[in-house]
Amino acid sequence: MSRSFTIKVPCTSSNIGPGFDVVGLSLSLYLTLRVKVDASADNAAPTLAYTGTGASDAPLDPYKNLTTRTALYVLRSNGVSHFPRGVSIDVHNQVPFGRGLGSSGAAVVAGLLLGNTLGNLGLSKDRLLDHALMIERHPDNVTAALMGGFVGSYLLELSPEDREAKDVPLSEVLPEYPPDAGEGWGANPPSPPRGIGHYIRFGWAPEIKVIAIIPHFEVSTAKARGVLPDTYSKSDLIFNLQRLAVLTTALTRSPPDPYLIFQAMQDKVHQPYRKGLIPALPQILASVTPASHPGLLGICLSGAGPTILALATDNQQKIADTICDQFKIEGITCDVEFLQVTNDGAVVVDGDEQ
Amino acid sequence: MSRSFTIKVPCTSSNIGPGFDVVGLSLSLYLTLRVKVDASADNAAPTLAYTGTGASDAPLDPYKNLTTRTALYVLRSNGVSHFPRGVSIDVHNQVPFGRGLGSSGAAVVAGLLLGNTLGNLGLSKDRLLDHALMIERHPDNVTAALMGGFVGSYLLELSPEDREAKDVPLSEVLPEYPPDAGEGWGANPPSPPRGIGHYIRFGWAPEIKVIAIIPHFEVSTAKARGVLPDTYSKSDLIFNLQRLAVLTTALTRSPPDPYLIFQAMQDKVHQPYRKGLIPALPQILASVTPASHPGLLGICLSGAGPTILALATDNQQKIADTICDQFKIEGITCDVEFLQVTNDGAVVVDGDEQ
Repeated sequence: MSRSFTIKVPCTSSNIGPGFDVVGLSLSLYLTLRVKVDASADNAAPTLAYTGTGASDAPLDPYKNLTTRTALYVLRSNGVSHFPRGVSIDVHNQVPFGRGLGSSGAAVVAGLLLGNTLGNLGLSKDRLLDHALMIERHPDNVTAALMGGFVGSYLLELSPEDREAKDVPLSEVLPEYPPDAGEGWGANPPSPPRGIGHYIRFGWAPEIKVIAIIPHFEVSTAKARGVLPDTYSKSDLIFNLQRLAVLTTALTRSPPDPYLIFQAMQDKVHQPYRKGLIPALPQILASVTPASHPGLLGICLSGAGPTILALATDNQQKIADTICDQFKIEGITCDVEFLQVTNDGAVVVDGDEQ
Repeated sequence: MSRSFTIKVPCTSSNIGPGFDVVGLSLSLYLTLRVKVDASADNAAPTLAYTGTGASDAPLDPYKNLTTRTALYVLRSNGVSHFPRGVSIDVHNQVPFGRGLGSSGAAVVAGLLLGNTLGNLGLSKDRLLDHALMIERHPDNVTAALMGGFVGSYLLELSPEDREAKDVPLSEVLPEYPPDAGEGWGANPPSPPRGIGHYIRFGWAPEIKVIAIIPHFEVSTAKARGVLPDTYSKSDLIFNLQRLAVLTTALTRSPPDPYLIFQAMQDKVHQPYRKGLIPALPQILASVTPASHPGLLGICLSGAGPTILALATDNQQKIADTICDQFKIEGITCDVEFLQVTNDGAVVVDGDEQ
């Protein structure tokens, strides 16, 4: 008896200017897992093979790889203590690591579906989101990768009683795995409370296309968070609240209004603090405008960067060229991806076709 | 030759929980002006008569009354130095003063339309909004009163050159009028820059009804702003950003989801700081929930308070009774208004019928 299925998870861009830790956008680069479960094979732990971007960096030890660790967390917090025997996983990845396109969120979401499918747990996507939020407390990327489309989400604050009763750390339950992590690691994980993350799918005007300009260097999310202040002025807070409220609806309207959107994508919460990590960022944000590049709607950091995301109805190649040229002045080369907003989110398909 | 017209401006509720200084909701209590211009009369300044709520408090001197002062600002910043002769204005007001229902925003908006119509200036509503934002730098109430419906808006930040060139104070140009204000007051006002406020109309699910519980005491906006801190923690900022992003779209969806909306209406930016000004506020926010009152969607301060706004699909009387009872414990009586969201915004109708 053997069984095979394919898991496909989109990459995501978060923040989109003012929506720090709030909004996520599901885009057409994928992390794909082709999974076989062969009952006649006798490997207790899954075997992993990895091709595509990041292949040389991704851990192939299933107790260290983020996707299989997440799957094990889902299994164990739902009463299944071990992986089934005879699992082999071929990973193919299109999502670059450390560039602000949700590579780790995609790995977590792939792990949710992997655990749910391997254990025949039948958990809903809403319930899987609870599990995701135990691992990654920032809901933006994981919600978009799991649900698809353009989404906004908030985290409930648990009452002190909840925290105590459920032993929920309210931080990553799978933070740094120990170097000697093995089969026994994370054997009794806390079960996620129900409904800790709420989300909504916004619309997305079909005319709006997405350009990702991906420079050839990494920014660690931890470092990009480290440069942010602990407090913000009331005026900066209001600046972002006003723009985010307008932006989520403005991006649903046809035809899109560059006059409204470009200003609504301005941010004072994270981008100004990250310019030291991303050479050319201030120049890029200042030099590419709807006036200089007709068709442009807005421009922002993708997640914590360094990828630059541009939204446009037209003129995509010229917009990309201008941004690449700005990076080139700093001696940095780029890849450019012209992407679609994808609505399916993460999917599991029986068989190894897709 | 004589001419008459009627100006009708809705009351508004701002903030709606997390949207401090961002969102406004246009509601069915009105400030109405019946205006006559009789060329055979020879009064140089408009005469004002005032009935309805606040009649004993509203200044009837046209150089002190906020509506006529605003009209004069619109006229003078567009090249008309004086009111036409023979203007008489009958004001009828349903919007209580100092209760968080946008009474001063309504007075400003009425003044915009009054100036525009008396001077035959032909300014668009977008251009009138620029004028409103010179007087009232918080866009939430004035945008909703002018445009109608449920709106979000942001203010552009002017460049230093703009500020200097246009002598724009970026604060209220009509702050405290001097005690000796007269015909010469504000004779050369700065003209507003174009497009300083951008806005968008959100949808509103038709099932969602609005209950305003209006306690019998006033809270001055200045005092209610004075209790707010200058800085906010990053986590409080993210708390509000996440909820506001979800809320504006959640309120458009049919049927409305109380599970999503109630939590999305929570706030950490202004309500917690205003409980000292509004007795019973913490008890009200804690004791009225969708669990205790089926049909309730959410509850918040209206503007700076003290009015409590409840959104509900059902059970409105019981929700209102519970909130009134909480105020009663503090020795405070209330009025209750069951209101509709109105979509027309401020209107001018020829003649004195409406």
